[in-house]
Amino acid sequence: MALKKKPVTGMKDILPKEMEIRNYVTGLIRETYGSFGFTSIETPSVEHIENLCSKQGGDNEKLIFKILKRGEKLKLDQAKEEADLVDSGLRYDLTVPLSRYYSNNANELPGPFKALQMGYVWRADRPQRGRFRQFMQCDIDILGEPTYMAEIELVLATTTLLGKLDFHNFTIRINDRRILKAMAEYSGFPKESFDTVFIILDKMDKIGLEGVAKELEEEGFAKESIDTYLAMFKEISSDIQGVRYCKEKLSGVLDEQIAADLETIISTVEAVKTADFKMAFDPTLVRGMSYYTGPIFEISMDEFGGSVGGGGRYDEMIGKFTGNNTSACGFSIGFERIVMLLLERGYQIPTAKTKKAYLIEKNMPADKLIEIFRQAEEERKTGIQVNISIMKKNKKFQKDQMAAEGYTEFVEFFKR
Amino acid sequence: MALKKKPVTGMKDILPKEMEIRNYVTGLIRETYGSFGFTSIETPSVEHIENLCSKQGGDNEKLIFKILKRGEKLKLDQAKEEADLVDSGLRYDLTVPLSRYYSNNANELPGPFKALQMGYVWRADRPQRGRFRQFMQCDIDILGEPTYMAEIELVLATTTLLGKLDFHNFTIRINDRRILKAMAEYSGFPKESFDTVFIILDKMDKIGLEGVAKELEEEGFAKESIDTYLAMFKEISSDIQGVRYCKEKLSGVLDEQIAADLETIISTVEAVKTADFKMAFDPTLVRGMSYYTGPIFEISMDEFGGSVGGGGRYDEMIGKFTGNNTSACGFSIGFERIVMLLLERGYQIPTAKTKKAYLIEKNMPADKLIEIFRQAEEERKTGIQVNISIMKKNKKFQKDQMAAEGYTEFVEFFKR
Repeated sequence: MALKKKPVTGMKDILPKEMEIRNYVTGLIRETYGSFGFTSIETPSVEHIENLCSKQGGDNEKLIFKILKRGEKLKLDQAKEEADLVDSGLRYDLTVPLSRYYSNNANELPGPFKALQMGYVWRADRPQRGRFRQFMQCDIDILGEPTYMAEIELVLATTTLLGKLDFHNFTIRINDRRILKAMAEYSGFPKESFDTVFIILDKMDKIGLEGVAKELEEEGFAKESIDTYLAMFKEISSDIQGVRYCKEKLSGVLDEQIAADLETIISTVEAVKTADFKMAFDPTLVRGMSYYTGPIFEISMDEFGGSVGGGGRYDEMIGKFTGNNTSACGFSIGFERIVMLLLERGYQIPTAKTKKAYLIEKNMPADKLIEIFRQAEEERKTGIQVNISIMKKNKKFQKDQMAAEGYTEFVEFFKR
Repeated sequence: MALKKKPVTGMKDILPKEMEIRNYVTGLIRETYGSFGFTSIETPSVEHIENLCSKQGGDNEKLIFKILKRGEKLKLDQAKEEADLVDSGLRYDLTVPLSRYYSNNANELPGPFKALQMGYVWRADRPQRGRFRQFMQCDIDILGEPTYMAEIELVLATTTLLGKLDFHNFTIRINDRRILKAMAEYSGFPKESFDTVFIILDKMDKIGLEGVAKELEEEGFAKESIDTYLAMFKEISSDIQGVRYCKEKLSGVLDEQIAADLETIISTVEAVKTADFKMAFDPTLVRGMSYYTGPIFEISMDEFGGSVGGGGRYDEMIGKFTGNNTSACGFSIGFERIVMLLLERGYQIPTAKTKKAYLIEKNMPADKLIEIFRQAEEERKTGIQVNISIMKKNKKFQKDQMAAEGYTEFVEFFKR
């Protein structure tokens, strides 16, 4: 019986050329984030089904690849529903596992703990171009740091990395979930409708101010609330002045320290940054996940036409595991999108080594073969990649094929 | 509801100290194997259930983590057996996926193709100390190279890597499945019983020659066969002389080129090797997997008291996917065992960077904070890892904790 050649639906085989870029990027990530004091950790790809379905994952919980119970635990004849059949699943993000990891290992970890995670996650999403059901996530998180020091470092580390990968002219949009709420409260929207308001507000960049107004009206919100709300967005500029406007305007419903901290984050990053980007205050930034509790951010890149990463503060998630809340703030970059952009650009890896091909005639005598291998060993020690192959009849084709793989030097060895 | 803190049964959270070694080893693997012309590739962690259950995986097929069908495809009420519920599973090795990958992408790959794979595999094994249900495999394979060039390069690349990790004095045991068969045939065992004979022979290092004799007798094999068989093992030395003995003795049942090639592999590796190890011909080496067709090898290390890797030629597996056989030869190192040995040794990473901690007083004024971040940026550019933290009340505890994490320099910043 012939076996299946294609990967499973929605997942992909990674070819050598892409793999070279992926390896370079992961190496650079480790080096760059390492220089900021982040340490690598890993959690298993498989997670308890209870943790995955704990309402921390939002819509991702609908997309879990679930794993069948094994052996005696699987009681097929007694199973009434899906939940009876599974005990675990593939993780859909790295945040839920990090929270479990931290609560499991806190005694052995420094405080604050700066974690770097790179690992695959799986989501049974509808397959579509450029989106896969298995993809790499790359997260940095600072746990146990309640002040804006966390936000500043996360933004600096992330943007330094993007700068090293030759990304320029991008924007870090920043907002605070508490400003988001204060604006809705100030406008008189009922508290229980905030999420509905934010889902509509989130479409601002697609449907514009008028579109947002229309959808809010359709939801039946008071005209006065809508007018008050949208008038503010017209006033708020995308710089520190915008934050100051919020601080004054919302003084009755917003702790002024929140706006002051946001100002510090923006001004400090602007003063220290080494990469070519700007910080923008964006009061329309929502970020989907309900677990965010403070500042939130997102990277916008014209080149990509969308977000290539984001994050925020989620001070209440770890408490779900430990019972005690632990400050937490994280930033995730869109690893797959970055790799895709680099591939499209024809990115050349700066650290690429010289690739040399030895083509040797078939049935080389033993003593000559030994000489060739020794010579290769010597060259490898100097950092050259030496690939030894038997010379083919169609030598030109063989060389062309290797040239396409990046081989620039060819040495031929004959029996005599 | 409190969530589960521990990882799922049999899998583990990886702490920063181990992660540092793992990252170092994976980097060294890429560099070393890269210098031999191996290129990294990856396949999805999830594989078609049909491919996983295709009898290529031997006993591992019993240990598959199976993934539940999703959406409409899952018909719980109609399911009569496990197979009705699943469409895929987590890969238990990298060899079956490599064969699928090669058959799927052969047109875009050079010939011969030298692949390096590092990736997790999953086996629902009985949990036991030091063995986990998720573990890293690290395989190199040469596809499309029918000659002993493949075996020589695989052994040289693997042993060069082990040498760079300060492993010494280990042994690469080598045999050939065709010699194994020829010895059984020469002794008069019936062909259909070869596998039974080999399973018993495989225990030689544990139960000795007499134990093997006893078990063969218990299986009811002819005394003459057993005597002829075991007499040969007494004669065969573990060097090239042993191979030559086989060549002569088995001349009626063994193509002499097979022994000659084995001789070339051993003598070439011995002449070229840079690491401190020896090649040993071991006619009792069996290697469990039935897919091997030619030379097979295994690394023995006294320090570990067992195998830390192995491989061999499997010229018939890829044909199961493509219909056309493709020469294939691979070598897998026991990544997890190597990491464990390095951890036990207290291995110091040679490329470790200086770790410097900045401890800053709380509520630092904005301008001073900016200065500190700028100073950190400058140091990071020189390759130093700079970790900025808020100074704690118990500064001594804080420093001790960071020292345990490898921080050797501390700089304190005060408001005035």
